[in-house]
Amino acid sequence: MTAPKGLEGIVVAQTNISHVFGTEGKLVYRGYNINELAGKASYEEVAFLLWNGHLPTQPELDALNAKMRPMRKLTDGGYALKALKGGANPMDALRTEISLLAALAPISGTATIDQAMLLTALFPTVVAAFQRLRNGKEPLEPRDDLGHAANYLYMLTGEVPPENHVKSLDTYLVLLADHGMNASTFTARVIASTESDIASAIVGAIGALKGPLHGGAPALVMDMLEQIGTAENVKPWMDNALANHQKLMGFGHRVYKTTDPRAEILREMARQSSTPAFFALARTAEEYGIAELNRRKPDQRLYTNVEFYSAAVLNSVGLPRDLYPTTFASSRVAGWTAHVLEQMVGNRLIRPQSEYVGREDLKFAPIAQRTPAAVS
Amino acid sequence: MTAPKGLEGIVVAQTNISHVFGTEGKLVYRGYNINELAGKASYEEVAFLLWNGHLPTQPELDALNAKMRPMRKLTDGGYALKALKGGANPMDALRTEISLLAALAPISGTATIDQAMLLTALFPTVVAAFQRLRNGKEPLEPRDDLGHAANYLYMLTGEVPPENHVKSLDTYLVLLADHGMNASTFTARVIASTESDIASAIVGAIGALKGPLHGGAPALVMDMLEQIGTAENVKPWMDNALANHQKLMGFGHRVYKTTDPRAEILREMARQSSTPAFFALARTAEEYGIAELNRRKPDQRLYTNVEFYSAAVLNSVGLPRDLYPTTFASSRVAGWTAHVLEQMVGNRLIRPQSEYVGREDLKFAPIAQRTPAAVS
Repeated sequence: MTAPKGLEGIVVAQTNISHVFGTEGKLVYRGYNINELAGKASYEEVAFLLWNGHLPTQPELDALNAKMRPMRKLTDGGYALKALKGGANPMDALRTEISLLAALAPISGTATIDQAMLLTALFPTVVAAFQRLRNGKEPLEPRDDLGHAANYLYMLTGEVPPENHVKSLDTYLVLLADHGMNASTFTARVIASTESDIASAIVGAIGALKGPLHGGAPALVMDMLEQIGTAENVKPWMDNALANHQKLMGFGHRVYKTTDPRAEILREMARQSSTPAFFALARTAEEYGIAELNRRKPDQRLYTNVEFYSAAVLNSVGLPRDLYPTTFASSRVAGWTAHVLEQMVGNRLIRPQSEYVGREDLKFAPIAQRTPAAVS
Repeated sequence: MTAPKGLEGIVVAQTNISHVFGTEGKLVYRGYNINELAGKASYEEVAFLLWNGHLPTQPELDALNAKMRPMRKLTDGGYALKALKGGANPMDALRTEISLLAALAPISGTATIDQAMLLTALFPTVVAAFQRLRNGKEPLEPRDDLGHAANYLYMLTGEVPPENHVKSLDTYLVLLADHGMNASTFTARVIASTESDIASAIVGAIGALKGPLHGGAPALVMDMLEQIGTAENVKPWMDNALANHQKLMGFGHRVYKTTDPRAEILREMARQSSTPAFFALARTAEEYGIAELNRRKPDQRLYTNVEFYSAAVLNSVGLPRDLYPTTFASSRVAGWTAHVLEQMVGNRLIRPQSEYVGREDLKFAPIAQRTPAAVS
């Protein structure tokens, strides 16, 4: 059977982990609507949920924290990052340093929840260490007395972050932690299906998330908002952009045909943690963008997507734009690892077919007898 | 539509690059039966063929060598490998060092043949440097006057290898360079489909090839041959193994239902480069294994697969067993990169679906109200 291009609509796995109900605008993790979790459960609780299938009791959460917080430490001092402090792409840095830490650990054999915890614990430390090293600063030790989101912001700045920043980032991390069979999650499952280790699967997934079609959009939204500059400039800027057939960033989604539930929640987070001027800019851009796009293309029913308010939230907590994809990865790693664990239950090698549309039965000619004309 | 598990039989892409005709026992690269190429075209010619779609003329091959040989050099001196010289898995080392070199290069933007050449040029240097470092030796500089296979063996040993070793390894590299839509190649294409860079795709593919279900089998064949020890011991050893329901390594293949054409050619290479005693062991094990397996399971028509004589060839040219997967990767990288280049022509994001078989409509309970019983 020939699958449609991009495997669109092809079900490649059964999963208990998460599902996107596109027409209803609903995202479910392990049976919980994301609206039930966001703002109530911490990222650590949600990671536990994704790995174990149920929300932790207090003793279970305490045990998770007791094990996972010490795992945040870079056992190699950020060795690979030190080679990269110059102008490397942050996703390349994350891919390399995680690969190195996993090789040193070493992570091998059938995937375990402990390995999932280790990888998830390491991501923010790696990103923060990279950020500090490229600014000529020493990486900071993680703090065991801080939660996952708070410790990430602390390791970036050296200061205990304000509560509204922690709340916004923690909610962002919860909302982005899994999303059905997206390209990076599928990558992780294909790699895991060879019975390779969980770190190889996650390193591959980082590479997939790096792609502009997958993890790259929020930075482009921020570029747009920066160019617009102020709420007052939204109308003239967008009118001009649309007149010039420029694409407005942060509107529309391949799966959701209504509001992305994550965008709604992130809007409230952005409201809490942004300056009033920046939030007015984002909100005006959203409202005018939706109105104008739907006036011009009434059949498409475009809304702001998760990238739009991801950008606003990540900007509001002080993250530089080129760390948006690595922060996205620092959330999604919980989902990736959960999918690897699930893949290993009754695993079968993912080995599809291709259709050969090339030539056949060519005769080999020794190199001296080949001519550019004959071989073209 | 729900695909069969493992995507078995599902055509996920059209390709001009290679095809496995399983029932005929035929492997084609860009229109050439592998039997037309093996032993006649060098690995560099075949890599050119996979990337460009035609065999190079002499000026084209000269240009390739002039560009690609200087690319073999480790610009960072094997920085990541130095952190790993202890007991790291060689595939973890390759994954990490290639990731680092690509980040330093940096490799970004739409994939190019030059990037494919750079990655392909680097693999043997990384593997050889790892091998020397873990043995307490300094890595050797690549030699521009040697071909790809000869230079690999030189960088491992410090000696210009004998011609029969070069011929055997070069033929091995040609035969393993591509093989339809296998799991690592598919991994590379999924990553590339996000418009990520070619190095991210190849780093992911290394992780997939690491899996025992994909690239791990030849080392297990060698374990078996070593346990058997001598040609005389084949019959008693295999009789005993089969009586104890042990699996004989190196027989049977998911796609080929007849002799694997690569196994036939590799057998001749093993004959040329092995000691007589070792070749007698391998040949006797092959003949007795086939005879016994087909006597016991006449409907399955089992033959030796590519792993069987890959092991024999790689052993005969002096490679340690745990470098078989990295040597396989050093061949397959030409195919991976060709597939990434092809994926980028009319690319569409590979984003399949999953079927949600988990729970729904669970109500959130604050952590203090959760009980182990209620959440299980």
